Amino acid sequence: MAPTLASNVLTPEALLAHYQGNRRLTRRVIDLFPEDKLFTFSIGGMRPFGEMVKEFLFMTMPIARGVATGEWVEKKLSQTAAPKAELLALWDEDTAALDAIWPTIPAHRWEEMDKAFGKWPSRGIDILLYAIDNEVHHRGQGYVYLRALGIEPPPFWVRD
Amino acid sequence: MAPTLASNVLTPEALLAHYQGNRRLTRRVIDLFPEDKLFTFSIGGMRPFGEMVKEFLFMTMPIARGVATGEWVEKKLSQTAAPKAELLALWDEDTAALDAIWPTIPAHRWEEMDKAFGKWPSRGIDILLYAIDNEVHHRGQGYVYLRALGIEPPPFWVRD
Repeated sequence: MAPTLASNVLTPEALLAHYQGNRRLTRRVIDLFPEDKLFTFSIGGMRPFGEMVKEFLFMTMPIARGVATGEWVEKKLSQTAAPKAELLALWDEDTAALDAIWPTIPAHRWEEMDKAFGKWPSRGIDILLYAIDNEVHHRGQGYVYLRALGIEPPPFWVRD
Repeated sequence: MAPTLASNVLTPEALLAHYQGNRRLTRRVIDLFPEDKLFTFSIGGMRPFGEMVKEFLFMTMPIARGVATGEWVEKKLSQTAAPKAELLALWDEDTAALDAIWPTIPAHRWEEMDKAFGKWPSRGIDILLYAIDNEVHHRGQGYVYLRALGIEPPPFWVRD
């Protein structure tokens, strides 16, 4: 007998929990970085990890807000290196803001095609998954930077 | 007026498409690696990229099969370095196998708690998301290795 198949497999709450679990791990990686290496250390001509963190901040709330409201507003941050404490404070602001905006995403916006920031055609769910992928991708690069600096990164599977 | 909220946001088909899009990108990264660096090049004492690729192979189909059937069977691979062509052939086998097994996952298995490989308690959906995260994470590290070797990695956003 053929099994009963699922029509859907992820609730908005479960995706938020997955995202915030990843964000908690990213926060640990930021916090482990030596202050003087955050915007200076690099391998192979890549960006320093602090610049990648700023990219996460540029993406997380502007994308969540865009999916929720259809308004795509770029985030303003100082264009220069920020002290670690400032990055972490911005991170924590986003944690609360993401929790607050997520339950306001209307049902139709998950599947609906939109043009993110007027440029990138995507369904709501896909650009949110992309933002998570992007954070995991660059955080993995941060792990290499930490190892190259002789610092042990946090366990990948711990998300609480 | 409060918006109508979604109860679910991702179909099994959409998650498979997301996974296979990521796997196509990973395949490109494997293919770009110089044969003689795949199991030798490393930064900061980390594993060479070829070992990470073997981990992806250990996870992808055994996890998909475990979620689909409740049977957790570890994959056997040679414990030594494999030629790139062999890794790519195994990769392509998994691509077809993943497409084949995915639609057989019974509805109840996505939410059901199980003990993956007899060890890791997880719902089906969570261990599948974890497998994707893990691949994105280590592939990001492969990007650093490629850059350190003077090789430009593929664009992150291209998944076709």
